[in-house]
Amino acid sequence: MTPPSPALAYYERTACSAQWLAFNRALAIELGAGLPPEENRRLFARIGERVARQLPVARCTTLGELEDAFNARWESIGWGFGRLEEGAQTLSITHDCSPLAVAFGADAASWTSGFLEGAYQAWFQAQGSPAGLRVQAMARSGEAADTLVTQVQLALGKFAG
Amino acid sequence: MTPPSPALAYYERTACSAQWLAFNRALAIELGAGLPPEENRRLFARIGERVARQLPVARCTTLGELEDAFNARWESIGWGFGRLEEGAQTLSITHDCSPLAVAFGADAASWTSGFLEGAYQAWFQAQGSPAGLRVQAMARSGEAADTLVTQVQLALGKFAG
Amino acid sequence: MTPPSPALAYYERTACSAQWLAFNRALAIELGAGLPPEENRRLFARIGERVARQLPVARCTTLGELEDAFNARWESIGWGFGRLEEGAQTLSITHDCSPLAVAFGADAASWTSGFLEGAYQAWFQAQGSPAGLRVQAMARSGEAADTLVTQVQLALGKFAG
Amino acid sequence: MTPPSPALAYYERTACSAQWLAFNRALAIELGAGLPPEENRRLFARIGERVARQLPVARCTTLGELEDAFNARWESIGWGFGRLEEGAQTLSITHDCSPLAVAFGADAASWTSGFLEGAYQAWFQAQGSPAGLRVQAMARSGEAADTLVTQVQLALGKFAG
Repeated sequence: MTPPSPALAYYERTACSAQWLAFNRALAIELGAGLPPEENRRLFARIGERVARQLPVARCTTLGELEDAFNARWESIGWGFGRLEEGAQTLSITHDCSPLAVAFGADAASWTSGFLEGAYQAWFQAQGSPAGLRVQAMARSGEAADTLVTQVQLALGKFAG
Repeated sequence: MTPPSPALAYYERTACSAQWLAFNRALAIELGAGLPPEENRRLFARIGERVARQLPVARCTTLGELEDAFNARWESIGWGFGRLEEGAQTLSITHDCSPLAVAFGADAASWTSGFLEGAYQAWFQAQGSPAGLRVQAMARSGEAADTLVTQVQLALGKFAG
Repeated sequence: MTPPSPALAYYERTACSAQWLAFNRALAIELGAGLPPEENRRLFARIGERVARQLPVARCTTLGELEDAFNARWESIGWGFGRLEEGAQTLSITHDCSPLAVAFGADAASWTSGFLEGAYQAWFQAQGSPAGLRVQAMARSGEAADTLVTQVQLALGKFAG
Repeated sequence: MTPPSPALAYYERTACSAQWLAFNRALAIELGAGLPPEENRRLFARIGERVARQLPVARCTTLGELEDAFNARWESIGWGFGRLEEGAQTLSITHDCSPLAVAFGADAASWTSGFLEGAYQAWFQAQGSPAGLRVQAMARSGEAADTLVTQVQLALGKFAG
């Protein structure tokens, strides 16, 4: 577990637009106090779905094309980028450099990842992904809790529940 | 009722950081569908209070000083500016150029003004304003619904309710 | 000559990204001290041409289409918008809300308009405009020096010189 | 020489405000074609001095204080941060995350570092640094040309020249 470089720490710290930093921090505290985490996660998933539909992606034929198409959308609004990797059972999605972690704070990280679940879910469904497949954020393991505070691990696959 | 200049229309349309425009639009739709307007207004008032406490203002001795101090805070985060005017019964506050109207959309305007109510309320109380005085957004009269979509009229005074 | 609205004055004052405001102000002072205005104007025209070529516009068939295509480019980088109007002898171009005036200051306004000359010139030539036609910024008449500090008047036509 | 992390590469690539990226790229090409590198370096040093004087720093008593004061200024305009380290002969300055490298391109890197020379020089002189001491950017050695394209190494000391 190497410490983050000072450069990375600087960039992550400043990744959220100053116009909405104080607002979003306050929003996260209010939502955290008012609703259970699971409900906030669903709220953020619905917000993510709506954002993905506002930023539609053309039908793609390869995983690489799809990754590029997603990332053109994310980068156009300063939301970082994702990497897609085919696994044995699931498709793994690693999303870096979103402003979520800084905007809403560490306490909210367990439910703000719902935003990325909803956004990727909507985009994959629009690509024809079977309705039974869901995108789910993975819990951070001890070692995974490394230097990149903005990293969120997700997977597309069959999940119970 | 003069039409807005093209320049003003352009600036208002682009007043919300691109990073949070789609997010905030989706948030407003979700909150509008999930909660009655009065509850959303209170939520936004609590968010405004928290933001004002994150951006504290030193004790001022004149209304002009106070206006300048508020506006230094607002401008530092790209939230426009307010003008304070002593009236017979109330202190009138006219806030222009906040990103609220564009970020959350016209349908939410009745309750997003709660944000400014909460922020000014917290700042005035920190200045020693009596607890009985409240900041309240004024309903837009027909004529007042003029060219400036970002303008919010508020007043500090004794309000029933 | 009506005074600018406070809202317009606020937006114009904040129209240049904070990251480059101090830099550009200093650049303008250095260029103003080092080179005659006509040379700075040509430098800015060449910069404008390069920027227009970095932001190419598809072939358009009507003036309205062309205006929309230009403005999609300008708005994508926060440079305001232009209006095109067919006149008897020239095509008039009114460009509002560029960051030029704030970024480089009033003293440089006579030559920073070269940037818009170069950009529109390059775009019109790529549309097939005859090489003999040039885009030229118009001197501000006394009355024209009105409320909008960011407004630049240009024309496309045959100019001596 | 480890490759840069994808996250760092993303942040560096997007470190320059979109409003000025195309403009600055074009400016660098024009300056590079019009003036020898040493003259552009002096131009950028004078610009850096002017920017430092626009962002004055209070008198500090320790190196740590000074670093914090510089960095509060740099961060307020999105220009990264510096680290100061006392050496045997010189004071070493490592500046990370400035938008210089992305804004002006790799070809201009040898002279755009003049900006940081001028800015630190002006700030150190305002702190009472002897006039004989100069800030100078160090040439990148082969190994030093590592993952961080935005890093500039400078030193304050006695330099021939």
